[in-house]
Amino acid sequence: MAYDPGNIFAMILRGDIPAHKIYEDERVLAFLDIMPRAAGHALVIPKAPARNLLDVEPGDLAAVMAVAQRVAQAQMQVFNAEGITVTQHNEKAGGQEVFHLHVHVIPRHAGIDLRPPLSYKEAPEVLAQQAAQLKTALTG
Amino acid sequence: MAYDPGNIFAMILRGDIPAHKIYEDERVLAFLDIMPRAAGHALVIPKAPARNLLDVEPGDLAAVMAVAQRVAQAQMQVFNAEGITVTQHNEKAGGQEVFHLHVHVIPRHAGIDLRPPLSYKEAPEVLAQQAAQLKTALTG
Repeated sequence: MAYDPGNIFAMILRGDIPAHKIYEDERVLAFLDIMPRAAGHALVIPKAPARNLLDVEPGDLAAVMAVAQRVAQAQMQVFNAEGITVTQHNEKAGGQEVFHLHVHVIPRHAGIDLRPPLSYKEAPEVLAQQAAQLKTALTG
Repeated sequence: MAYDPGNIFAMILRGDIPAHKIYEDERVLAFLDIMPRAAGHALVIPKAPARNLLDVEPGDLAAVMAVAQRVAQAQMQVFNAEGITVTQHNEKAGGQEVFHLHVHVIPRHAGIDLRPPLSYKEAPEVLAQQAAQLKTALTG
């Protein structure tokens, strides 16, 4: 399947729309999901175009996962999380909604279920504060 | 959290119990989940001890994900899958049941929900045949 540069994460990468960024390097961008399944739900994406796991360049995948690990470690600390759930969806049948590879990294607490996908929109000021905390934990 | 070498995937790595293996190299083992959430549900693990994403050595994580990608590509072909769902659970609150890092790679078809985790045990002869097909696709 071809990569469509009109997707919303490509727009974020181009700076056409804003995002609550928490980490950025030459290859990878991480930011908060505006429809979090739990507080602190982050997305980690490669900067290079990749539709999903099926076509990503392995070096970009490795870079994305190394950042996902650091994001998970930061979330444990910032949100006093007790666990982390990682999901990654490929093609519509696999649950993919935005066709630029992304890894969901979601802080968890015992006994609290994840919200269904796309069921809740977080307030921008809450996202801004959480992003600032994660950014500090990731770079401080 | 410490690594407990008594977990069932460590037993598989030591050869103490069998598994329907589909791929193996110096750093990574992939095999079929005996309680698949969909046909062809595979697990990819590092050979080195790692409890989960929070403590894995980044090079092992990169190696695991490179194999997860190849497994996903093989599943698309062998099962005529229309998508792939990847999940990875960390600590009990994050959904982790076996405390050796593992990545679930699950073939998907449109309109067919995943079975709930641990809800269905596949017949060994079915797993053996699926493993043989995936092994061929991964090495052939």
